[in-house]
Amino acid sequence: MKALTPEPLTRENFAPFGQVIETAGAHHYPINSGNCERFHDLARVELGGVHARPLISILRSKSYALPLTLGMVERHPLGSQAFYPLSAHPFLVVVAPDQAGIPGTPRAFVTGPGQGVNIAMNTWHGVLTPLEADADFLCVDRGGEGNNLEEHFFAKPWLIRAP
Amino acid sequence: MKALTPEPLTRENFAPFGQVIETAGAHHYPINSGNCERFHDLARVELGGVHARPLISILRSKSYALPLTLGMVERHPLGSQAFYPLSAHPFLVVVAPDQAGIPGTPRAFVTGPGQGVNIAMNTWHGVLTPLEADADFLCVDRGGEGNNLEEHFFAKPWLIRAP
Repeated sequence: MKALTPEPLTRENFAPFGQVIETAGAHHYPINSGNCERFHDLARVELGGVHARPLISILRSKSYALPLTLGMVERHPLGSQAFYPLSAHPFLVVVAPDQAGIPGTPRAFVTGPGQGVNIAMNTWHGVLTPLEADADFLCVDRGGEGNNLEEHFFAKPWLIRAP
Repeated sequence: MKALTPEPLTRENFAPFGQVIETAGAHHYPINSGNCERFHDLARVELGGVHARPLISILRSKSYALPLTLGMVERHPLGSQAFYPLSAHPFLVVVAPDQAGIPGTPRAFVTGPGQGVNIAMNTWHGVLTPLEADADFLCVDRGGEGNNLEEHFFAKPWLIRAP
């Protein structure tokens, strides 16, 4: 089985797939008479298609253990999808470039403390994958009309190793 | 000085001012082969005016202690503003009904574990007010053109008591 080893997530290595939502390195400025710092506009929320609107949801996911077998990725042709963890545990982010309508070689990232992601519209990605413990995530994605889900099942699954 | 005592935050008592973002009582359904539960569409994100788009930001606020003096409330005529805490501590939410263009008698709420709020467009509210400890919040609000801030300074400040 072909195998991947996850990389630590950074703004730079995730840039082809979306944005890392984090305070480190972000533009920020004081508000509320200096009592609060605003780390501003950390993600590009994309809302395509008809009657599109942003949704705020909470996702409560069971945890996964590495190594794991990646059999499927999906993408959302009509909108981006942001996930921000509500716990201190890392999560695994799997994405893949598109190659003529199907996913190419996947890449895997493991988040550090305080990191969330915004997966760009129409970007192949694995399901939400908390590590170490079950976890809640705040999710900002797209509601509206139309089919916003495409799934791809790999002929040969990928093995994602422990980092 | 006129005084207010905060109430525990509930969907019902906050309904005139926006939505409580919480899993309790929310519509939910399984995703990801049953490994994840989605508590769906918990807030009404409002995006008014020209070139409006949703922003995802992180707000890092110093904490406040009760009792406190409330001298000012503000409102955003062009968009809603959601705050979800990234820590387990409560925060204070102050809002006020509009009375002919100025805020009426304020109401104060204290959040419970896992509760965030989405303050409706053009609703008078106090600044972000974490209690007990400095805290980070994920914020979803509106970017775009136009003046999206109106402030009102009370002629006589309000005292907000400890609950």
